[in-house]
Amino acid sequence: MKQSATEWGEKALLEALIEVMAREPKGLVIGPGDDAAVVATTPTTVVTVDSIVAGQDWLVEQSPPAAVGHRAAAVNLSDIAAMGGQPKWALLALELNEHDDVEDVLQAAAEMAHQLALHGATVVGGDLGIGQGPQRWTLTLMATPGPRTLTMSQAKAGYRVWLIGEVGRAAVGLNALIAGDSSTEMAPLIESHLRPRALVDAGMRLADLPYDIAATDVSDGLWIDAVRLAEKSDVGLELHLPRPDWLSPSIVEQVRRYGLDWRELMVTGGDDYALLVCAPWSLDLRQELSSVVPLSIEAIGQVVQGDLVSIHVEGERLTGVARGYEHGR
Amino acid sequence: MKQSATEWGEKALLEALIEVMAREPKGLVIGPGDDAAVVATTPTTVVTVDSIVAGQDWLVEQSPPAAVGHRAAAVNLSDIAAMGGQPKWALLALELNEHDDVEDVLQAAAEMAHQLALHGATVVGGDLGIGQGPQRWTLTLMATPGPRTLTMSQAKAGYRVWLIGEVGRAAVGLNALIAGDSSTEMAPLIESHLRPRALVDAGMRLADLPYDIAATDVSDGLWIDAVRLAEKSDVGLELHLPRPDWLSPSIVEQVRRYGLDWRELMVTGGDDYALLVCAPWSLDLRQELSSVVPLSIEAIGQVVQGDLVSIHVEGERLTGVARGYEHGR
Repeated sequence: MKQSATEWGEKALLEALIEVMAREPKGLVIGPGDDAAVVATTPTTVVTVDSIVAGQDWLVEQSPPAAVGHRAAAVNLSDIAAMGGQPKWALLALELNEHDDVEDVLQAAAEMAHQLALHGATVVGGDLGIGQGPQRWTLTLMATPGPRTLTMSQAKAGYRVWLIGEVGRAAVGLNALIAGDSSTEMAPLIESHLRPRALVDAGMRLADLPYDIAATDVSDGLWIDAVRLAEKSDVGLELHLPRPDWLSPSIVEQVRRYGLDWRELMVTGGDDYALLVCAPWSLDLRQELSSVVPLSIEAIGQVVQGDLVSIHVEGERLTGVARGYEHGR
Repeated sequence: MKQSATEWGEKALLEALIEVMAREPKGLVIGPGDDAAVVATTPTTVVTVDSIVAGQDWLVEQSPPAAVGHRAAAVNLSDIAAMGGQPKWALLALELNEHDDVEDVLQAAAEMAHQLALHGATVVGGDLGIGQGPQRWTLTLMATPGPRTLTMSQAKAGYRVWLIGEVGRAAVGLNALIAGDSSTEMAPLIESHLRPRALVDAGMRLADLPYDIAATDVSDGLWIDAVRLAEKSDVGLELHLPRPDWLSPSIVEQVRRYGLDWRELMVTGGDDYALLVCAPWSLDLRQELSSVVPLSIEAIGQVVQGDLVSIHVEGERLTGVARGYEHGR
């Protein structure tokens, strides 16, 4: 029988949450349950916070609870990946709707903790609220920096641009999920949407290299994230995306039936958490990273002087404004 | 003319928020605007996260915007105070309702940053969302520990119990605000509710003393917070609260007219952010702290063996369950 968050109450639910997420890693001085946690840290710490909200960042009816927890971890892990950090400590501020099913919430929390643990991070504290609004997972993630830190502002004219991982898969998968299309062909793309993969190992490897490397994770859409990186580095970018391997003619056709264009989804869909990387031309990232990243690694363009981001897909130049997901617009 | 969060959009609002909170303190390696921030840290770090939600943690109509920002800072500063830490770095996950007035939000953010700065902390990053739910401020606060750390689990039988700061004021003030009673007598109590004061300096001073000291901040209510501390330390507490100085006969009468009992408000009202401290009997906290805390410092009882928390107000033993604010009950 389903039991709501209100039926359990804050105290019982908090204890159950701490239990499903419990771990006792090295370096944890004081864990959950006191006024604050105390953790071991290095001379500098990389920190980020991100929220995901029911109905806004995931489809409530179509997403299994574990996918929600997976996503809560991935959005933050991906930010750390884009800085080249080693994830260490996490704090969860969880807001539940009073009608939320407790079993689902605990499953999601367990999966979130599991995904964090896979990348070396542990939940050490948090805050729980039960109210009338939509379910929201706000995760703060602290990380140990690598020998160098990847930032958005280190791209230089003459650098080569790389895309690690793929773009567009999650957006196509999301639209398939909305359309209720769970065909064999769409299933792996739906999986890309439900369980995005943060490229933490790739980021750490890049931060180990003795070069100034610029990077960002493609969270809001390749185009808008490329514009942000270009602005921060005060450069232009010329990007040429090939037609992706996973895009069969029947997927193209299916996407068209959804009323969408696959090229547009590739440059505006953000939830794949690929890494957009600008590195010295001489550096062959495919060679450097292929042992840690079992994913597509493609040279997709170059950094140029100026402030223009031009983007071509399969040879065709896309025009219009940089679009991507922007809250409140 | 009022402008809503949606009218501004995420990008413009984010830029304005960063501007009103901007500071460039020592030790900030990478500030807001990249995928994550990078900050200087010590060998261990104290971390906490807390959310406040419109309509739940503050009265929307009756609270000036600055009071909202003040509260967002105070709830977190108070947790750090209860550990004896020196606040350093903050991350803000802000969720706005699409109809929220932007001027109000910016005023609140500026005040939050100001309150944090007063205690040595800086906002270095965050996350902004605009949606349909209530306004929510989720603040993560990182702090440098003192020579010792105050925890809830260090109380020992024979210790003396102290209350630093006052309890009940904010609860009376809240009820006055609800009743629309802004008389001269109630005004300072309303102020206690609107602008709670985190006792960061007191906590740091306690953490400097060469003793194992137990502490917690009274955030949910003296009684329930005392029970939590007692459970964590595996001890009992005998507490005797005097009638407070601020409680005039006419305030007692007024509280009764609200249908409430002042004794109950004193032991269940939590938002004053007083500190409940258990320290060796020989230690005179009034002497140790009076130079840093211009507030009431009272010996209010003793730590005993067993698991009973008994609480007396003005000589009268209160019975019943420990009550305080618990979400979802």
